[in-house]
Amino acid sequence: MAATQAACIFCKIVKGDIPSFKLFESDKVLAFLDIQPLSKGHALVIPKHHGAKLTDIPDDALTEILPVVKKLAAASGAVDYNVLQNNGRIAHQEVDHVHFHMIPKPNETEGLGVGWPAGKTDFDALKKLHEDLKAKF
Amino acid sequence: MAATQAACIFCKIVKGDIPSFKLFESDKVLAFLDIQPLSKGHALVIPKHHGAKLTDIPDDALTEILPVVKKLAAASGAVDYNVLQNNGRIAHQEVDHVHFHMIPKPNETEGLGVGWPAGKTDFDALKKLHEDLKAKF
Repeated sequence: MAATQAACIFCKIVKGDIPSFKLFESDKVLAFLDIQPLSKGHALVIPKHHGAKLTDIPDDALTEILPVVKKLAAASGAVDYNVLQNNGRIAHQEVDHVHFHMIPKPNETEGLGVGWPAGKTDFDALKKLHEDLKAKF
Repeated sequence: MAATQAACIFCKIVKGDIPSFKLFESDKVLAFLDIQPLSKGHALVIPKHHGAKLTDIPDDALTEILPVVKKLAAASGAVDYNVLQNNGRIAHQEVDHVHFHMIPKPNETEGLGVGWPAGKTDFDALKKLHEDLKAKF
């Protein structure tokens, strides 16, 4: 086990070395309550496979995640909610083990705050980017 | 087809009635560039199955989504990025067909703005909520 993985708080939760409010567990994923919730019902789903960013996780460790996020949303009774997964400090990631937040949005003040600095549509730039990215698929 | 589905802009994109900058397509999912990007490379992955919120989508229409989001992140070359799926107007959803944003976060001003109004940890409240939610799983 790599040093970063040994020190990972979410790997410790998976192993049971740190307690958590577990809601669902399978061979590949674990779901538990966030202990610093943005709103009542805020919960996390993680792959048991350790990796800091989404691009570090094998596909077969990802397929079960969204069905479990869906279960969390349904169980919480939330009508409105955000699903968020942050990659990198600047993108607000605080624990370097991939985790998906399911955050109920009961009102304007509780839950996730979303800032949306959309630019104007630039079709020429999009067309060029599209060509560049298509070549990578 | 329900009236809301017939009018759905993303269902029209799936059918090819509205053009898009497609990046990936399979039987179950479609990925394309967001034309009002928050940052260069901002793209969307949608299930072809129409549904407004995550809880409306069958599990088998969800399993391929994150592997495709991962492909988008890798192709964009983004080091830091956010994955976001909004449910409901108050949670910043604008198109009522489930969609996952992959939004590169190249710097503080571009990309997603994240507001995080975390409360204090209340273990008694979490313990009670945990009991309530576990009964629903």
